[in-house]
Amino acid sequence: MRPIEHLSRVEAIQALIGTFPPLEPRIFPVREAVGLVLGQDVSAQVNLPAVAVSAVDGYAVESSSTGLASPQRPVTLTPGRFQWVNTGSPLPEGCDSVVMVEDCSEDGGNLQVFRSCYPGQNTRFPGEDVMAGQPLASKGQELTAQSASLLIGAGVTKVLAIPRPRVLFIPTGDEIVSEDVYAKGSKPGDVPETNSILATRILGEAGFHVHVHPEIVRDNRSLLEEAIERGTQEYDAVLISGGSAKGRRDMAHAVLKGRIIFRWLLMRPGRPAMGASVNGKPVLVLPGFPSSSMVILFTLVVPFLSHLSGRAPATYFDVKGVCGYECPLLQPMSSPPGMEEWAKGRAVLLDREVRVYPLGGGSSSLWSLAESDGLILVPQDAVELPKGAPVRFYPWVRMELDRRCLIQGSDDPAFQLLALGTRRRGCEVVIRRVGSMGGVMALSRGEAHGATCHVLDPESGRYNVIVDRLDGEGDWTRVLLFRRQQGLMVAPGNPKGIHHISDLAREDVRIANRQHGSGTRILLDHLLVSNGLSPDQVRGYDSVCVSHGDVAMRVLNGFADAALGIRSAAMAMGLDFIPLVEEPYELVYPSRYRGHPAMEALVEMAEDPEWRSRVEAMGGYLWP
Amino acid sequence: MRPIEHLSRVEAIQALIGTFPPLEPRIFPVREAVGLVLGQDVSAQVNLPAVAVSAVDGYAVESSSTGLASPQRPVTLTPGRFQWVNTGSPLPEGCDSVVMVEDCSEDGGNLQVFRSCYPGQNTRFPGEDVMAGQPLASKGQELTAQSASLLIGAGVTKVLAIPRPRVLFIPTGDEIVSEDVYAKGSKPGDVPETNSILATRILGEAGFHVHVHPEIVRDNRSLLEEAIERGTQEYDAVLISGGSAKGRRDMAHAVLKGRIIFRWLLMRPGRPAMGASVNGKPVLVLPGFPSSSMVILFTLVVPFLSHLSGRAPATYFDVKGVCGYECPLLQPMSSPPGMEEWAKGRAVLLDREVRVYPLGGGSSSLWSLAESDGLILVPQDAVELPKGAPVRFYPWVRMELDRRCLIQGSDDPAFQLLALGTRRRGCEVVIRRVGSMGGVMALSRGEAHGATCHVLDPESGRYNVIVDRLDGEGDWTRVLLFRRQQGLMVAPGNPKGIHHISDLAREDVRIANRQHGSGTRILLDHLLVSNGLSPDQVRGYDSVCVSHGDVAMRVLNGFADAALGIRSAAMAMGLDFIPLVEEPYELVYPSRYRGHPAMEALVEMAEDPEWRSRVEAMGGYLWP
Repeated sequence: MRPIEHLSRVEAIQALIGTFPPLEPRIFPVREAVGLVLGQDVSAQVNLPAVAVSAVDGYAVESSSTGLASPQRPVTLTPGRFQWVNTGSPLPEGCDSVVMVEDCSEDGGNLQVFRSCYPGQNTRFPGEDVMAGQPLASKGQELTAQSASLLIGAGVTKVLAIPRPRVLFIPTGDEIVSEDVYAKGSKPGDVPETNSILATRILGEAGFHVHVHPEIVRDNRSLLEEAIERGTQEYDAVLISGGSAKGRRDMAHAVLKGRIIFRWLLMRPGRPAMGASVNGKPVLVLPGFPSSSMVILFTLVVPFLSHLSGRAPATYFDVKGVCGYECPLLQPMSSPPGMEEWAKGRAVLLDREVRVYPLGGGSSSLWSLAESDGLILVPQDAVELPKGAPVRFYPWVRMELDRRCLIQGSDDPAFQLLALGTRRRGCEVVIRRVGSMGGVMALSRGEAHGATCHVLDPESGRYNVIVDRLDGEGDWTRVLLFRRQQGLMVAPGNPKGIHHISDLAREDVRIANRQHGSGTRILLDHLLVSNGLSPDQVRGYDSVCVSHGDVAMRVLNGFADAALGIRSAAMAMGLDFIPLVEEPYELVYPSRYRGHPAMEALVEMAEDPEWRSRVEAMGGYLWP
Repeated sequence: MRPIEHLSRVEAIQALIGTFPPLEPRIFPVREAVGLVLGQDVSAQVNLPAVAVSAVDGYAVESSSTGLASPQRPVTLTPGRFQWVNTGSPLPEGCDSVVMVEDCSEDGGNLQVFRSCYPGQNTRFPGEDVMAGQPLASKGQELTAQSASLLIGAGVTKVLAIPRPRVLFIPTGDEIVSEDVYAKGSKPGDVPETNSILATRILGEAGFHVHVHPEIVRDNRSLLEEAIERGTQEYDAVLISGGSAKGRRDMAHAVLKGRIIFRWLLMRPGRPAMGASVNGKPVLVLPGFPSSSMVILFTLVVPFLSHLSGRAPATYFDVKGVCGYECPLLQPMSSPPGMEEWAKGRAVLLDREVRVYPLGGGSSSLWSLAESDGLILVPQDAVELPKGAPVRFYPWVRMELDRRCLIQGSDDPAFQLLALGTRRRGCEVVIRRVGSMGGVMALSRGEAHGATCHVLDPESGRYNVIVDRLDGEGDWTRVLLFRRQQGLMVAPGNPKGIHHISDLAREDVRIANRQHGSGTRILLDHLLVSNGLSPDQVRGYDSVCVSHGDVAMRVLNGFADAALGIRSAAMAMGLDFIPLVEEPYELVYPSRYRGHPAMEALVEMAEDPEWRSRVEAMGGYLWP
């Protein structure tokens, strides 16, 4: 077999579909076939209802015996000419209709009827719901619980259906350790085996049960070969996690040689995914990074397993009632030409429109994977997508968009804690760290529910003057959340003796800086200028981080000697801190969002004593 | 305890929530807590990555050793000053950056570096993804597989989480039999136990496992009492199926007396649902009709079990990523004042807009339940909703709307078979039987993808003249699907000796008729007039059915002596048939739908030999 290389994802799925037909249908009791695709047409075996039954609680009668009964001229029926029936009870012999309780009264053994009856009144005819012989379901249709009930009611007990594929997931890799080994403290660089959690869940939600291979297979040809051999004998499909790339420890290519169907997808992440046929069974090799693995599971494995289960290819993404929807981008995206890109994304509801944006973080980032709502598809032929461009978004978790708000702006750990706290009220505050200036600009363009900022106006020496300048007086609500200390973070013990902003210009001092538009960077520029210094005198001025935590981490790890930042970030890392200024940290939002559940929760939480005491423990915060 | 009676569904949920707190959280291994709501805040235990690691495959170096390397002036590093690293491998001692393979070449044991390096280049810092102490998830949040991976990566092994409630489902009722007993032929009026299939699936999809009580409990006080007693001792919630209404066999009220929390909901279906507290555990009594049961499961049980699982009440309908969406009605609806109504509905995509309409069929109809896509909510305060009014629609099955078309118009069993056949091509043809006239009118208003019709124009004696009169010449595609025989259906052996249309006016003959706008009714009117008869001479003229099958059933069961209808319907019931006319049965659709997958499938299927031979076997059809 010659592998197809450098192909699109859809071509890869087609290659798999061309190689492996759907599983053979088997006979199942109807109840056990719920969720399976039928392998046959199904018709009703009996009428439903089988006999005429009452549609109400009342008295069964022979209609002609009620004559022209009316409230003025009731007709009296003697015992034996009427009989009580419950809803659903068969009509007794000789009766052809039912009088409702409110249209008669039982009186000394007789029944007074106030309304004349026609044949069949208040009854359900035999076959009224379904007639014997009527087609009920057809080959290729997925049996719902509702249809299964119908089939059973219509006398069908067994159906031919395509079973769910039995799937084996084999984790591999020398660096991969079980979560227990990892937690007990393993070698540096070891990675806990968590991809099986993603596979079990993603495939489980699509209706596929996954068996996880109990051992993590080392990067060893014969061990991998043996696991694949055994797996393909016992399962309908085998998923290998890791080992598909070109690294020196990647064994999958060597082991599967001659049996590979495709490799190198024109997509990212997921490029190294590989498909093979061993013992007539599909073997799919998934990339090892969690995000890459997740994308391949979602966009390739689910569609292919759906095919094995007999579902139509049209349902590739339609496994959870969610088939992706079109919404505009909140920020521009670019993608290499000829590559389909699946970016982890978040969705927010702004002015009744869902908008999405990609999350940073590479394929190895567990944080951005956990933060994402789903995948943004950038098609193979797209290269540059401007802000507002429509993209397709495929959620992979449940979202409650009307209880979520997007705050763009300044980074602050206390504000993050506050945002997290709103989850207790069933709300969610999503933060995009774009710097104070970026936040206010986004707000003015309607691209956020609110902004956080601390921007010094060098001319006036006042803070957050830009907020005063937002259009529409009175339309904005401003909340001073706290004041916080900014200063210099330096290594523990301050080995380089950094005490003043002018020390940043020393030849032996390298700083870590923040991104353009960040309030902290604006403050640094102001401090440099007021001390007669210019940026090009400062080493590391252009090495940029997007958060206080990141710069602190650089200082801690010796990649920088000093950085301007807040006390809480320095304290969290055990760094020394030289305080320089105190600044107000404000939340600004359009007043029309005052009733937004997440905004309400945010503002209330900011007054919450528990939250305040946790923030105080972080250091460097003062209440307004 | 005094029960609250005649309350809204939301009040009922509130009463339950007020009585039963969420289950007590327990410690779970992180992997097993996926899908559960956290009972604690969770922070990172370790940095992720734990040490600086390479972000690429390449050579780890000490950045200063690369000096001002450039392609013109490469720097040569001798062995020991560089080391190969895989992506994710820890940086070796003494190295602070990684040179990518493309920026260097190994040459006789030395490494030629073409590009100068800065500290930290192509590396991931310790804590870059997550820093120790960083909050990762908070109490009240549902743990996704992605978050579980993050937690494990950040050194968290166990979490406090709220377990899933263990749920017991008890089927009850003297008329309810197991599906096996039913299939073997049970008493008339017996109903197979299928509600447990609905409960298992609906609750299963919401993440709740249901144990079905192995026996169907008879309508007997002590048996029911005992089952409830045992169930509440062993489970977190008990669902009783049936027995909550006022019928003579309904035992739930008597058994639960004094322990009832609420009964009689201001909603339909589902009015008789009941909630009680036994041994401190919730007992919910569901109505016995399948649709009523389904509605209560969907709108009350899922929200309440979600509450027991610690989910926020905001997520009542948000269990599958589908929280209901607003779309306009395709037909008017009305609802009794003060009652919330949940109608079984279907959705179609017409001109890029999703529209929904209610399905007929009472709560006992399994057919309409199986046909429905979900529920249309008519709020408590709504009484009349005109066509086009926005309603909320909650799908309960997966829909592929862009592969579905809606055909309104005439009823025909062969056309139904054709529609069903398109499912083999992954398509779906939804039929609304509104009669030929109704179909063409709907089409002209853009309320259908196509219409089926056979309408005689009495003046010209020609068929389907109304189609010629549709606006926009050339915009319509017409397909003559078949010709079919219309005639009189009479009981087997024709006991009343009916041979001619004039026999319908006989005093001893009662007919069943079709609805207004039906082509068959128009034909009947024409036949009566041309025989010098008027409708008021015909007994049963006003007893209306919406399909050929229905009128045939009436004749078969002796509720009518004759009916005008098609041969195939008569044959299916074993009725005698007196042929009168042959008529063309046409499919009409806007030409712009020619490429619609379902329309394509429909037209192709109509030429399919297998389908044609099945139709021929039905009787009374001729090919054009």
